[in-house]
Amino acid sequence: MENEEQSETAHTEIMDATYQALCKYGYASVTMEKIATESGKSKGLLHYHFDSKDDLLAAFLEYLLARFEQDIESIDGTPDEQLDEFINRFVVDSGSDDRQALHLALLELRTDAPFNDRYREQLARNDKIVRETIANIIRDGIDQGVFRSDADPETIARLVLASIDGARTRELTIGDDGYAGAVRDALYDCVIDDLRAETNE
Amino acid sequence: MENEEQSETAHTEIMDATYQALCKYGYASVTMEKIATESGKSKGLLHYHFDSKDDLLAAFLEYLLARFEQDIESIDGTPDEQLDEFINRFVVDSGSDDRQALHLALLELRTDAPFNDRYREQLARNDKIVRETIANIIRDGIDQGVFRSDADPETIARLVLASIDGARTRELTIGDDGYAGAVRDALYDCVIDDLRAETNE
Repeated sequence: MENEEQSETAHTEIMDATYQALCKYGYASVTMEKIATESGKSKGLLHYHFDSKDDLLAAFLEYLLARFEQDIESIDGTPDEQLDEFINRFVVDSGSDDRQALHLALLELRTDAPFNDRYREQLARNDKIVRETIANIIRDGIDQGVFRSDADPETIARLVLASIDGARTRELTIGDDGYAGAVRDALYDCVIDDLRAETNE
Repeated sequence: MENEEQSETAHTEIMDATYQALCKYGYASVTMEKIATESGKSKGLLHYHFDSKDDLLAAFLEYLLARFEQDIESIDGTPDEQLDEFINRFVVDSGSDDRQALHLALLELRTDAPFNDRYREQLARNDKIVRETIANIIRDGIDQGVFRSDADPETIARLVLASIDGARTRELTIGDDGYAGAVRDALYDCVIDDLRAETNE
């Protein structure tokens, strides 16, 4: 038997290997065997930790979303800076090949969510947390007088998240590297700049 | 040999059968055989029209996007009404089970676009046409004095399309029927209402 610490290390190693294997082979083609090879562990050991590929991928989604949530919750600075950082992290991140490959694997995984309760629940929970994080940044900005007081944090958060998600999907599937950046600029022109502008009056 | 008219009828019938088969089985599981069964034609006849499943699905994507483009170009009324109709057609359409199934199959297909030149070219062309259609509606509205003269048609069109696309993907993958409607409302609150409001001054 492994002790708790060993088990936690093994879990992290398997998650890293899953990340690499998904980037390399994509969601549809990844197998327990390929993940085992990537991790340098035996397929048997992988099965000791996870019953099935479904089980492993649901755990990976949970791990990835938790890491993402920690990541965006750790953004600091003024509300203004936090909002910029949040939006740009989404857009700039999608530039690297590895991030593109992961984002594509995640998009494939998401198309399975209508048939997979665990994926769907985790995606719904994550959607809620991310929207709340954006809304809280805007709320703080209103409280501190840097954003207009009549702005609706939940409504803006909804539009920010949907447009960034759509932009990334289109950038990836159309193969136009500037797509997400162009939508970010549109988001500033139509929504974010206006959120700030009125405070200068 | 079929004459041109027969060939065109057969093409439409095969496209209809592909639509049905994609809704029934999804993109990953659909086969030439299943599409043949759906169309009431032999697999041999299907192969007479299309060399491979890839070939057939690329033709189907072209057919579907062309139909969608005709559909949105046929929207009439004042620019105000046209914009509402465009946005609501996207959102309301996604409500029915059949449309959900098709949208999901299309999302799966889009995840293959980075590896499929024909998909990617068609999706890029469609993206451009749809954005231009929205921008033209806004441009007409500015010319007719119903939308603010300082609005940027291309920028707003970009944000409208990205946010609706992201909203539909989230509605579908999270399984929340009200998601696209909520993003539409956010789009009106943050962008569209503002496009109109200033003209009353």
